[in-house]
Amino acid sequence: MSKGITSRTDDYAKWYNDIVLKSGLADYSAVKGCMVIKPHGYALWENMRDALDKMFKDTGHQNAYFPIFIPKSFLSKEADHVDGFAKECAVVTHYRLKNDPNGGGVIVDPDAKLEEELIVRPTSETIIWNTYKDWIQSYRDLPLLINQWANVVRWEMRTRLFLRTTEFLWQEGHTAHATKQEAEEETQRMLEVYATFAEQFMAMPVIRGVKTANERFAGAVDTYCIEAMMQDGKALQAGTSHFLGQNFAKAFDVKFQDVDNNHEYVWATSWGVSTRLVGALVMAHSDDEGLVLPPKLAPVQVVIIPIFNKDVEAKARINDYAAQLMQELKQQGVRVKFDNDENSRPGWKFAEYEMKGMPVRITLGARDMENNIAEVARRDTKAKESVALENLSAHVVQLLDDIQNNMYNKALKFQQDNTRRVDTWDEFVKVLDEQSGFVSAHWDGTGETEEKIKELSKATIRCIPLNNEQEAGVCILTGKPSTQRVLFARAY
Amino acid sequence: MSKGITSRTDDYAKWYNDIVLKSGLADYSAVKGCMVIKPHGYALWENMRDALDKMFKDTGHQNAYFPIFIPKSFLSKEADHVDGFAKECAVVTHYRLKNDPNGGGVIVDPDAKLEEELIVRPTSETIIWNTYKDWIQSYRDLPLLINQWANVVRWEMRTRLFLRTTEFLWQEGHTAHATKQEAEEETQRMLEVYATFAEQFMAMPVIRGVKTANERFAGAVDTYCIEAMMQDGKALQAGTSHFLGQNFAKAFDVKFQDVDNNHEYVWATSWGVSTRLVGALVMAHSDDEGLVLPPKLAPVQVVIIPIFNKDVEAKARINDYAAQLMQELKQQGVRVKFDNDENSRPGWKFAEYEMKGMPVRITLGARDMENNIAEVARRDTKAKESVALENLSAHVVQLLDDIQNNMYNKALKFQQDNTRRVDTWDEFVKVLDEQSGFVSAHWDGTGETEEKIKELSKATIRCIPLNNEQEAGVCILTGKPSTQRVLFARAY
Repeated sequence: MSKGITSRTDDYAKWYNDIVLKSGLADYSAVKGCMVIKPHGYALWENMRDALDKMFKDTGHQNAYFPIFIPKSFLSKEADHVDGFAKECAVVTHYRLKNDPNGGGVIVDPDAKLEEELIVRPTSETIIWNTYKDWIQSYRDLPLLINQWANVVRWEMRTRLFLRTTEFLWQEGHTAHATKQEAEEETQRMLEVYATFAEQFMAMPVIRGVKTANERFAGAVDTYCIEAMMQDGKALQAGTSHFLGQNFAKAFDVKFQDVDNNHEYVWATSWGVSTRLVGALVMAHSDDEGLVLPPKLAPVQVVIIPIFNKDVEAKARINDYAAQLMQELKQQGVRVKFDNDENSRPGWKFAEYEMKGMPVRITLGARDMENNIAEVARRDTKAKESVALENLSAHVVQLLDDIQNNMYNKALKFQQDNTRRVDTWDEFVKVLDEQSGFVSAHWDGTGETEEKIKELSKATIRCIPLNNEQEAGVCILTGKPSTQRVLFARAY
Repeated sequence: MSKGITSRTDDYAKWYNDIVLKSGLADYSAVKGCMVIKPHGYALWENMRDALDKMFKDTGHQNAYFPIFIPKSFLSKEADHVDGFAKECAVVTHYRLKNDPNGGGVIVDPDAKLEEELIVRPTSETIIWNTYKDWIQSYRDLPLLINQWANVVRWEMRTRLFLRTTEFLWQEGHTAHATKQEAEEETQRMLEVYATFAEQFMAMPVIRGVKTANERFAGAVDTYCIEAMMQDGKALQAGTSHFLGQNFAKAFDVKFQDVDNNHEYVWATSWGVSTRLVGALVMAHSDDEGLVLPPKLAPVQVVIIPIFNKDVEAKARINDYAAQLMQELKQQGVRVKFDNDENSRPGWKFAEYEMKGMPVRITLGARDMENNIAEVARRDTKAKESVALENLSAHVVQLLDDIQNNMYNKALKFQQDNTRRVDTWDEFVKVLDEQSGFVSAHWDGTGETEEKIKELSKATIRCIPLNNEQEAGVCILTGKPSTQRVLFARAY
């Protein structure tokens, strides 16, 4: 079945776009670079959000909401931050429109010019730390563990659905601590939350690591990240957690009185993941027939499709059984849908749910019902089997677990098979060009060499893995001594 | 206990602000007219959002997300809409900043001017109907039942925390239907969802009605609303549901092919509630000691406060019992917190949780524990009682129900006691000035008279109640004949 989806081998980028559009995850919009997140895509994001939100709350965080606008002058307050973020932003300069006196619709009212321009937030460190100044006086006010779910805008010239859009949805955690150690622990704790979420919910194995100085967040002392491998072997940064030191506290003069009555600057972290994860999920698992969704995140986990014939009694039997099965599955927390719409043919439904990535499909046919069996199809392997009705709900619950695990294991094997150690420059370029994937190689530790490697190979250092093995070697480019391998890849 | 809260009788507006700020619901921000929603306020909003979201999904709606930016030209496409909304908006004119060559931080890059300005959405009918044009071809694509949770911006000159802010959070439903009747039914269905939510979750009785032509949403054929009474007798519009006819379908050329292959314009509705409801909740129930939250929405429903003395064994007994009680309550779905922080004194905690509006407080003292009792205090009436430990969890579950009902009944009685029928202009003005509240009076049905009444009395027609009794009478202002009473009030 082609369904008009380009195959991965023909054109991976086009395949990705086809999947996102045809499975109903998102659509282009009338505003350049902004997308519309369609119901199927938004339901997926809601499940991601809810799972993450629970993990944030379980680790002591509370949600809050800060203004979407940031006064322009705030961006200049932290020197590194302005260099990293101040450039490509949406700028609000006026606050009123008026009717065009010449009848041409509405025009911007020149009399309504803001004294200071407002920036639509590209990230909220500045407005939040300006607020924390009022909230933090004493060690009793710390730690302050806040998260925000919000939309942000970064003006992008080249956009791709979910992966890089001008507006996107995300969460940004912003925490304040009394000590450096506590802030560093928080940074790593949230990195581990992201890694756990990626692996256990998205079925997407990740490498935990720390960025090189060149790749750090603007204003951070250290940026930790999780890196995932897509099916074309490219890397995708799936989440970052930043140790901000006292940089923002100093920029916004946020001090606290400690137990000994000293006034000290507060230590900070920030961390975020975004709707980019929806793109990562697509690229990690889907195939040429459509989406493949991990059960834990799928908006609908099981779809039941009846095959009606002219026999009215058989139809009643199917409907009755479906109602009972729905109830059994719902009681066990399964998200299930019974699609008995008689305006669509079963074959059309099969293709549609395959496209949308529903993990399990149960077909109830009249003859099968007489034999007390049903056909169960799994989306990940496309395997079908006949299952006795009496075991069906228990079988399906187990199958959802199996699919979740199988998807993770498959992705893990792919990641491992496509991570290669290389020791020479020629080998490095050859592997990247011919095999893609992650490359573990020695580097001399300088930003200069890192830049040069990027220029020559289009590969970047994705991270220095956590607990990295120390090993003497020589830099693949310069031949200078190196103490450890780092992870290179071409990346989204 | 004053806690620095102005009393309602002294200055109702200041009382409201004191409550919002001191109970930790919200804070002012560095951006004029925008607020920071603090953790306690955001947790309340999350509970509102989750309850509403479930009601939307139970009535067949799906969530989606549309761009925050609207091309300026879109606003002019629906003639009435542009008059109502195009005026006070945040306008994005540029997409890049740059470093000031004179060293003054960052400046707007004059080379990065947008060809067409973008408006930060004040509401999304235009961008959504521009999208629906691509989504709707046939009757099979209808009804389209979509909701969006989002932030919106309306540039306000005079703002008040939650009640009127430049940026606010809300949901906006936008549905498309094949027939007028279906769209009208949807409009009323969602009004009823709002009314049910206000009454059953917020414990806030509302009047369901329809707006006069003057008060209609810009672009609507009919605007339905729910109106609540605040403790100062003023009305607050708590939700609106609009029947949009074919106005937006015509403006954006959205037609569908019906079963007979005719091409017809689509019928539309939109409906929304916002963070304004948090302000309504405060003003409907709170008192001079702080917030009073209905149990169904309170972020924490029950707080357990131990009173420790020097007796180590007694302390262990209290801690053990509290752990058991927490478990029992959680099993019954109660949101409970055990505050055993020994850095704060019990008296301070009592005042703090009273301020924050926690519905039930349980105090566990050493002597009471010896007698197998605990003190239970309810926030709404401030009544306290001793309850046997063996009955405690069952008692508390029942008490939460009682509080929810009591709050509703109290607010309903207040609304009924302060709704008055008047028949003359003098009486009308006198009631508004001396007693406030809702006034049920005859009106001649013209927009002109409505305007005049507003000018003279500052009262507006809040709504024509649904299923309004028909009754011959004469307009209080003009003496012209009238067929029904309508509901007047001064309003937020």
